[in-house]
Amino acid sequence: MTPSLTTLIPHTHLNREERRLHFYAKGENIPTGSQGVWRVCQGIVQLSTLYPNGEEGLLGWVGSGMCFSLWLTSLETYQAKALSDVYLIWYSIGEIENSPTLAKEILPQLTRRLRQVEGMLAIAGYRRVEERLRQLLLLLQQEIGQNVAEGTRIIVRLTHQDIANAINTSRVTVTRLLGQFKKKGVISFDSQRHLIIRHGKLSLCIPSSDFDPFQSNAS
Amino acid sequence: MTPSLTTLIPHTHLNREERRLHFYAKGENIPTGSQGVWRVCQGIVQLSTLYPNGEEGLLGWVGSGMCFSLWLTSLETYQAKALSDVYLIWYSIGEIENSPTLAKEILPQLTRRLRQVEGMLAIAGYRRVEERLRQLLLLLQQEIGQNVAEGTRIIVRLTHQDIANAINTSRVTVTRLLGQFKKKGVISFDSQRHLIIRHGKLSLCIPSSDFDPFQSNAS
Repeated sequence: MTPSLTTLIPHTHLNREERRLHFYAKGENIPTGSQGVWRVCQGIVQLSTLYPNGEEGLLGWVGSGMCFSLWLTSLETYQAKALSDVYLIWYSIGEIENSPTLAKEILPQLTRRLRQVEGMLAIAGYRRVEERLRQLLLLLQQEIGQNVAEGTRIIVRLTHQDIANAINTSRVTVTRLLGQFKKKGVISFDSQRHLIIRHGKLSLCIPSSDFDPFQSNAS
Repeated sequence: MTPSLTTLIPHTHLNREERRLHFYAKGENIPTGSQGVWRVCQGIVQLSTLYPNGEEGLLGWVGSGMCFSLWLTSLETYQAKALSDVYLIWYSIGEIENSPTLAKEILPQLTRRLRQVEGMLAIAGYRRVEERLRQLLLLLQQEIGQNVAEGTRIIVRLTHQDIANAINTSRVTVTRLLGQFKKKGVISFDSQRHLIIRHGKLSLCIPSSDFDPFQSNAS
């Protein structure tokens, strides 16, 4: 069911006649315009960049209220993929620059995204891949988690490759580590293969030492 | 010489009587408050996080007009160090939230910082350390570079350890690679040991392949 603009748009100052909701189905790539920003009204969008060797580097996830666009990045290759059905609103640069009210509304959302990206950058600096995965699960829990009886359920389904692309390792390593985490009761999967992070169990996976020489970065 | 408020503060709406310039000398750590943001009026501030093993992870550099504070991060350990003499202005969260004009002014600065952090996150995903260094030099050139006759001079002096902390490698590796870059004529140093990136030479260092297995991350 298409949500109505009234339920999705929190602010009251925009002209409802002119504003249109854009829909992208789960799995679709979203064109990342450079002359404005997309604001997510509903759903989760995954952002990534492409390396010259064809590999993908994950840059984060934007959910309800958050913004993304080529204008907000300095990267030459920038991809946005709908991880669920998403509804978006487009604001042009002019609109944002000329409306202090809109700027005031977008500011906390940019702050939220800045915190996320900085969190991911800090994760990339952990030497041990186990610790990068543990830190990523903490971040996912906070960013795109939903409380359920057993713990926190990640509201979209991430592939092992997505997780590998977020923590600079291989898919095979992610599969092996998630297997270990599952064995320890740290994570589980629901019937839709969504990851569930069990209450208070992530501390069980703290590596005994993060002092390894740089060689241990390999995995 | 202390710059006057009138020359440093670009916006006209603030109350000059109440607004005070804060000075931190080169090398000093700046207290990172959580109930507002620092805005840089002059100078360069280096942001970093600390890992449990005591190592430092670099998160970027903020220059004139840009903002930083604990409020803008989700990281538990957050350090700000003056890489030159710096002058700062403090804005409380309340001020920002209540002033759409201030929000409008800060918005492009947050966008600038978001672009920088995303750029650094993308750099962290390159497998080969040579390529991470090359990409970091491109970023530094853009963020804190100054045109000089031979190329772009980085306006603050970065240690090899700073560079190592920014690209997840060891100081020894950075020293070795910078030596190679210097030999190839890609970089040089001025009398104050500031890095100069020579015009159009960074393309000389593109590694022949970025296809190496993850083991090549080690260095």
